[in-house]
Amino acid sequence: MDIDAILNSVAQGLMSPKEARKLIGELSIADLGHTKIDLERGARTGFAEVVFCQGKTPQQIEDIFSEFQARGLDALGTRISEEAASRLRLRFPNAVFDKISRTAVLRSKQNKEKRGLIAIVSAGTSDMPVAEEARICAEFFGSNCQCFYDCGVAGLHRLTSNIDKIRKARVVIAVAGMEGALASVVAGLVGVPVIAVPTSVGYGASFGGLCALLSMVNSCANGVSVVNIDNGFGAAYIASMINLSDSKK
Amino acid sequence: MDIDAILNSVAQGLMSPKEARKLIGELSIADLGHTKIDLERGARTGFAEVVFCQGKTPQQIEDIFSEFQARGLDALGTRISEEAASRLRLRFPNAVFDKISRTAVLRSKQNKEKRGLIAIVSAGTSDMPVAEEARICAEFFGSNCQCFYDCGVAGLHRLTSNIDKIRKARVVIAVAGMEGALASVVAGLVGVPVIAVPTSVGYGASFGGLCALLSMVNSCANGVSVVNIDNGFGAAYIASMINLSDSKK
Amino acid sequence: MDIDAILNSVAQGLMSPKEARKLIGELSIADLGHTKIDLERGARTGFAEVVFCQGKTPQQIEDIFSEFQARGLDALGTRISEEAASRLRLRFPNAVFDKISRTAVLRSKQNKEKRGLIAIVSAGTSDMPVAEEARICAEFFGSNCQCFYDCGVAGLHRLTSNIDKIRKARVVIAVAGMEGALASVVAGLVGVPVIAVPTSVGYGASFGGLCALLSMVNSCANGVSVVNIDNGFGAAYIASMINLSDSKK
Amino acid sequence: MDIDAILNSVAQGLMSPKEARKLIGELSIADLGHTKIDLERGARTGFAEVVFCQGKTPQQIEDIFSEFQARGLDALGTRISEEAASRLRLRFPNAVFDKISRTAVLRSKQNKEKRGLIAIVSAGTSDMPVAEEARICAEFFGSNCQCFYDCGVAGLHRLTSNIDKIRKARVVIAVAGMEGALASVVAGLVGVPVIAVPTSVGYGASFGGLCALLSMVNSCANGVSVVNIDNGFGAAYIASMINLSDSKK
Amino acid sequence: MDIDAILNSVAQGLMSPKEARKLIGELSIADLGHTKIDLERGARTGFAEVVFCQGKTPQQIEDIFSEFQARGLDALGTRISEEAASRLRLRFPNAVFDKISRTAVLRSKQNKEKRGLIAIVSAGTSDMPVAEEARICAEFFGSNCQCFYDCGVAGLHRLTSNIDKIRKARVVIAVAGMEGALASVVAGLVGVPVIAVPTSVGYGASFGGLCALLSMVNSCANGVSVVNIDNGFGAAYIASMINLSDSKK
Amino acid sequence: MDIDAILNSVAQGLMSPKEARKLIGELSIADLGHTKIDLERGARTGFAEVVFCQGKTPQQIEDIFSEFQARGLDALGTRISEEAASRLRLRFPNAVFDKISRTAVLRSKQNKEKRGLIAIVSAGTSDMPVAEEARICAEFFGSNCQCFYDCGVAGLHRLTSNIDKIRKARVVIAVAGMEGALASVVAGLVGVPVIAVPTSVGYGASFGGLCALLSMVNSCANGVSVVNIDNGFGAAYIASMINLSDSKK
Amino acid sequence: MDIDAILNSVAQGLMSPKEARKLIGELSIADLGHTKIDLERGARTGFAEVVFCQGKTPQQIEDIFSEFQARGLDALGTRISEEAASRLRLRFPNAVFDKISRTAVLRSKQNKEKRGLIAIVSAGTSDMPVAEEARICAEFFGSNCQCFYDCGVAGLHRLTSNIDKIRKARVVIAVAGMEGALASVVAGLVGVPVIAVPTSVGYGASFGGLCALLSMVNSCANGVSVVNIDNGFGAAYIASMINLSDSKK
Amino acid sequence: MDIDAILNSVAQGLMSPKEARKLIGELSIADLGHTKIDLERGARTGFAEVVFCQGKTPQQIEDIFSEFQARGLDALGTRISEEAASRLRLRFPNAVFDKISRTAVLRSKQNKEKRGLIAIVSAGTSDMPVAEEARICAEFFGSNCQCFYDCGVAGLHRLTSNIDKIRKARVVIAVAGMEGALASVVAGLVGVPVIAVPTSVGYGASFGGLCALLSMVNSCANGVSVVNIDNGFGAAYIASMINLSDSKK
Repeated sequence: MDIDAILNSVAQGLMSPKEARKLIGELSIADLGHTKIDLERGARTGFAEVVFCQGKTPQQIEDIFSEFQARGLDALGTRISEEAASRLRLRFPNAVFDKISRTAVLRSKQNKEKRGLIAIVSAGTSDMPVAEEARICAEFFGSNCQCFYDCGVAGLHRLTSNIDKIRKARVVIAVAGMEGALASVVAGLVGVPVIAVPTSVGYGASFGGLCALLSMVNSCANGVSVVNIDNGFGAAYIASMINLSDSKK
Repeated sequence: MDIDAILNSVAQGLMSPKEARKLIGELSIADLGHTKIDLERGARTGFAEVVFCQGKTPQQIEDIFSEFQARGLDALGTRISEEAASRLRLRFPNAVFDKISRTAVLRSKQNKEKRGLIAIVSAGTSDMPVAEEARICAEFFGSNCQCFYDCGVAGLHRLTSNIDKIRKARVVIAVAGMEGALASVVAGLVGVPVIAVPTSVGYGASFGGLCALLSMVNSCANGVSVVNIDNGFGAAYIASMINLSDSKK
Repeated sequence: MDIDAILNSVAQGLMSPKEARKLIGELSIADLGHTKIDLERGARTGFAEVVFCQGKTPQQIEDIFSEFQARGLDALGTRISEEAASRLRLRFPNAVFDKISRTAVLRSKQNKEKRGLIAIVSAGTSDMPVAEEARICAEFFGSNCQCFYDCGVAGLHRLTSNIDKIRKARVVIAVAGMEGALASVVAGLVGVPVIAVPTSVGYGASFGGLCALLSMVNSCANGVSVVNIDNGFGAAYIASMINLSDSKK
Repeated sequence: MDIDAILNSVAQGLMSPKEARKLIGELSIADLGHTKIDLERGARTGFAEVVFCQGKTPQQIEDIFSEFQARGLDALGTRISEEAASRLRLRFPNAVFDKISRTAVLRSKQNKEKRGLIAIVSAGTSDMPVAEEARICAEFFGSNCQCFYDCGVAGLHRLTSNIDKIRKARVVIAVAGMEGALASVVAGLVGVPVIAVPTSVGYGASFGGLCALLSMVNSCANGVSVVNIDNGFGAAYIASMINLSDSKK
Repeated sequence: MDIDAILNSVAQGLMSPKEARKLIGELSIADLGHTKIDLERGARTGFAEVVFCQGKTPQQIEDIFSEFQARGLDALGTRISEEAASRLRLRFPNAVFDKISRTAVLRSKQNKEKRGLIAIVSAGTSDMPVAEEARICAEFFGSNCQCFYDCGVAGLHRLTSNIDKIRKARVVIAVAGMEGALASVVAGLVGVPVIAVPTSVGYGASFGGLCALLSMVNSCANGVSVVNIDNGFGAAYIASMINLSDSKK
Repeated sequence: MDIDAILNSVAQGLMSPKEARKLIGELSIADLGHTKIDLERGARTGFAEVVFCQGKTPQQIEDIFSEFQARGLDALGTRISEEAASRLRLRFPNAVFDKISRTAVLRSKQNKEKRGLIAIVSAGTSDMPVAEEARICAEFFGSNCQCFYDCGVAGLHRLTSNIDKIRKARVVIAVAGMEGALASVVAGLVGVPVIAVPTSVGYGASFGGLCALLSMVNSCANGVSVVNIDNGFGAAYIASMINLSDSKK
Repeated sequence: MDIDAILNSVAQGLMSPKEARKLIGELSIADLGHTKIDLERGARTGFAEVVFCQGKTPQQIEDIFSEFQARGLDALGTRISEEAASRLRLRFPNAVFDKISRTAVLRSKQNKEKRGLIAIVSAGTSDMPVAEEARICAEFFGSNCQCFYDCGVAGLHRLTSNIDKIRKARVVIAVAGMEGALASVVAGLVGVPVIAVPTSVGYGASFGGLCALLSMVNSCANGVSVVNIDNGFGAAYIASMINLSDSKK
Repeated sequence: MDIDAILNSVAQGLMSPKEARKLIGELSIADLGHTKIDLERGARTGFAEVVFCQGKTPQQIEDIFSEFQARGLDALGTRISEEAASRLRLRFPNAVFDKISRTAVLRSKQNKEKRGLIAIVSAGTSDMPVAEEARICAEFFGSNCQCFYDCGVAGLHRLTSNIDKIRKARVVIAVAGMEGALASVVAGLVGVPVIAVPTSVGYGASFGGLCALLSMVNSCANGVSVVNIDNGFGAAYIASMINLSDSKK
């Protein structure tokens, strides 16, 4: 029952103004005790809510997955600890876990057909966990992905030799730590949006990804925007929004 | 003459390998002395190069505008000083200057028809110069824009009363200084990508926009990515890429 | 017409649901073109909106003051430049300007009777502009104020000799730059809330007030909370909320 | 025996000036060896001293609790380690421990009747430990509390659907990590003081709560002041001061 | 009349407890309106108060100098602007101004005989204003000074060739910007306390003296302690305390 | 087959343009699955690729070493964990491990004769791991090295007594934590390039090497350039480039 | 044999210039392999070298202590790990270990008579390890010490009730974490140099002692200078230099 | 007269030990009053001292240039203000001024023949002042230079089309602001040392060159070391050391 339905009920005398006021407030919230699941936004955006598991107890995570399953919704958890993963495995034998990216996917429905193409380019081997989180999330949202790993700018040909394939994507996710130069170089070579993900890979004056973050924000190339350090999920989310949008709007 | 044409010429004996090598190198550079204009990238991306005028002398800016005009290309300059603007006005009487955003547009061709819709939402009156830079650039690239100014989160109804209109856009540009909370709130209310632009508006612990930048990067909402502080142009560029993309790719 | 009135109108058939929806949105916004004035919040909080003039043009400020005057509302502007003050003086001869705090007050109504007591304690002579902004704003909101200036902790007796008077207040505003130790010392001596205002007074490693801000946030004393650097207005606002609250709620 | 009594004794010849001088110094300090307990301030402020246990040994904490018990005072300890909690449990079987907030309460007296109302609003599930520390401390000080958890701004209706209840409070504690936007949004919706508590929840560029702290300090909303990162106790202290104050002063 | 005298008066019935209480509070404060002059501390420490003129108006500075003169006290002002200096010159023709260090000295009494020896060592020509402020202040406090300028560590022999003279001092003030290495090297070569003064001399990553400050705080040499950036006065103060102390205490 | 050979093949009709295009892309990349090994750069620079093992799994490291061995290339790994070292020891009994510097060298070929001279100067005992990493890498690249450890500037003679030997080198590597003054002092005493390596040695305000890094970047001495914190390898690389260069170019 | 003796030997023909040159270089260095012990500086300054054990292996520490013992010198080690302490205990049964301050003292000679007085004032119980390190080091250097712990400014009377005793000292060491206000307050109350030691005690925005460090550097009180965070030893060193100096120089 | 000559004189009885001691100290210092000119280092390093004019008065600069001229030495001044340049022009009509780089060269001797080759690559037009400072200094030191300006990585072909020419250099200076990615990309393409110069070009989160500095320090490419922000001179100095070194040493 959405806001229009409620107002119509009031107009038709089927609902008192007081009831209406209460319903408008409760419209879109499903309260799980420790966590409120946002149902309306899921419907509105076409993207199911993904569960950020860091800082939640295994019990809380299990509750949330159960709630999703009970409602017939697909569930994706990110940053799952070993301990939480063990627990989920027992409870949801059908869930698919990925160790590198620390994600879990529990499908209630058939996989949607994937559409479009996101290119995921990363600088070094150590950036793989973040890049893989981006890939798994983007695929969960229904995007095709193609990955180009270990393409850091210190060996430019590793990137340029793949550039024609990368140019086929509707959007690129560029994943890099250290000095984060990959985003600028990629954006200079393609004609589509580049979502840059700084990673905490590096040491010394990389300051846990701060250097890469600043680097990407200051990119001299056009068409770059940036998400948080190590935020593969966030990059996948906005990249999928771009990749899956159609031009009729 | 692109790389395929060159290789074909070599194959047909029309060009020596040595000539080919040289041509591949020079393929896309037009050297203006102080500045190299990137012609290939313009063709590749569909976006003409915009001139960032800060740090360039009035003479250099005039040279670049002249070059663009001579080649029949549209020119857009951002961050033009008063001094440079005065000079350009004399030389290019047809150019259109905007004082708030400090931009200049010189059309060689008819305006392209604008397509799609970008919503530009800003937090306060003082954010207007950045928001207007975004609008003028986005329109220059061929995007329709609708602006919602002074919609900061401290008076939430100023934003929520416009939310239905904002939801019609294919992408939103959220412009805010101080604590930059606007990006998170907007992204929670719409289902399209939000390009967040932190501004240097504020004082004290806003540290010239750093607070807003961090805030936007750490957004708890999905679908947000961030460009540099006060970078209205950068937001317009990637937003237009998203807005103008078609779904056939 | 508030939301309850609107819903009642719908229930009584005096208003269509569609009209209702529109009215709910527009309920509380008065749009001045460049600025939206938040009327509902004023009514809700009992505090008229104060105009932060930094970053606004003299014309915009004059427009806002005119709007307030036209509606019979009192107006208070902070951080007014010399240029804007000159302009306002011509237009509003009854307005009261204060040079040290850079504020302007334009009364449409009789002064309200002032209530309660706020003690404003500052560390040094150079903190006076911020302390005076706090005083003028707090008095504008209807609070009695008593000021204790140049009471920095390096000469503790300057503070302790006044402590009995300070203890009479319902809330204390502590204003200090440099190392900002005043807030901790005052809070250790009184039994009421201390609103700490770091100032940008200092040099070298004071980093424009950052040192004082951190100091106050890390205060070892209980009952301290902190507003932005140089934000005398903000301290006055929350201090007045506390001072003017009654205990019936 | 307070300072006035001492001076009177001197005037009446009952005490020598030398004795008086010594007594004035020792007036309010009870020295436990490793820790000095401040008795006068407790009497002065109406708030018993709370023990910050981080950085103290289990033995020291036990000593302090014993001292409180011996004097018939209530004791509240915050940030108690597992190890210290185990020790206290053996010694004080009546003490109440809370695992989430890591607090311990040892009542010597009957609970006071609670008064007023503090609303505690938090952004996400992971902010609960800080929010619960605030709740337990505020209740210890004699305030009624009502909690609204997982109300982050990315799903605004989770907050707005509760806003009428929140508005019933005399003061609001807003607890949020990441970009900390909650404080601004809440303050824009209520007419009472908002004590903002940044938390260290987040990752990457949240820098252990620095982003949330800056965000809250730069809040564009009125009526916000800020305590240290994760300082639930500090927020409870000042909020209780506000909540419990009466308007007769 | 000090605290002991007051207490004695009470004991002798010459003063009421109430009067005593008031006198204790007012004991040491002379209130100039905008500034409180601390008389007791001057007597206690043997160092007259120095006026930090930055952030004070020329009028306020003149008032303070007049007050000092009226009481027969010597006055020293630091960080005097050109404007304030011009004003003081008219009013106090006997005052001595120093342009490099931006100080003014107004003697009411004969110069005290100078004692001991402070060596002031600076790294480069640009550090001279800070070093000279230190020298003038230290001489004002009664210390002999010897200066060794332009002795930066990049040309070590400029320092080592003077080391025997420097070793004659009771305390060394080391003044350096950029990487501030001078303090460590000097402290390794002498056997007396080194007061390190970082300066804002430098550019780029010197961050206004932050690099030198950190460097000096992290000194690997023993016997170094540090004052604020550009704080020549502060160094002179503590260095004079050390230089002028006698060993009888 | 390099690019000239490919173009010649096309000219001679031995290769189609399409094949040529593909080959140009693949020219220099050997893809190991998780890692791409850059063969062309090795040939181009004369320096074999060194494996930065931090953030790679033992399996990945073993794969890379195997690949190097299979191709008859020497392998050097840095920042090898205990776990990875144990694994490599089993697989490559001929490899040489160094515990202090956490490096492993696996020679496929005879050691090259070493040339030139690099002086490695370090400030304290705790800087040894970084200094030793530099030494082992530089020797791997074919440079002679001489080490001067524990020569911090607080005891200047420890450095100056060795200065004649240090001056014999073609390039100096200066390794220091804390305030990092060593680089400036050394550079002032020698006439060759100084590559400065800040280390994370220190505590408190050394901020993990940031102080030393800033110090070295701000060096007042000529001839200093800086690599990342703790980056002994990086210093060895560029120092060897300088040391091994001949003057014929 | 010092430099004068060497030059005389040359003048008398007892030594060749070449030998002289070598001896001048080696004059003051005793090389232990991994560590160089600075003998001349000890003689020059009257302070034996203290061993900073953090970052040294137990073996290295044992070597250094043995060397000191063999030469009949007293040894003091700071920041000794549990592991190293266990080892030293076996080897040097006469050494005295202190667990709180993590120090070890090995006397070869009779204790010197202690002179003068240093007052050590600390803010809270958690600052004790740093304060105790200062005390033990200062006593090792021959200074009398008196400690005043848990005297934080939030309960000012804890400090003021001891102020007469503190004023008896020739120099004060003020130890505080969090906002570090103690240094300013103490310095305002005494007339001797205050050596301020920021500690890493605190949480959230204390940033590991940075807040206290900045606070102390920005102190509004005169006579304060600052050493590194948690550097109790460094404070003791310079304080002892001041305390033990005599005024004959 | 160097140290060996002095010692020989002593041995031959031509000089007393006392005289010798004095001479050793004064050996290499020529004191100009405000500035000490380091003569020995010039001789030792083969590089004349360059005058950093920022922070020096025109008079001081003129004095230094005169001193150089009087001694028949070439003089190079950097960061010369307009005011100082005007003054020097009058006094030294033969001096050559460069407006972009703000340098002045005064030749006393014939130009030395230039040797070797330094490639100077810069990212954008606005980096030219720094790049030109590097060029002029390097040529002053006797190096041949070739410049490649406006080769930022956003248009990679601008760089790659010149790479063969760049590879001819013995050392490369890479000059870039914003995200500073140029250094990494260049270093990946050449086999010689790359001296990276971050510039303050940029805005917002470039923080005056800090982003570029961090980026270059964290470079994923081998063979990069870094000088201070905008330090074209410093890069030229060390690059010339490398370029001019011969391999006989």
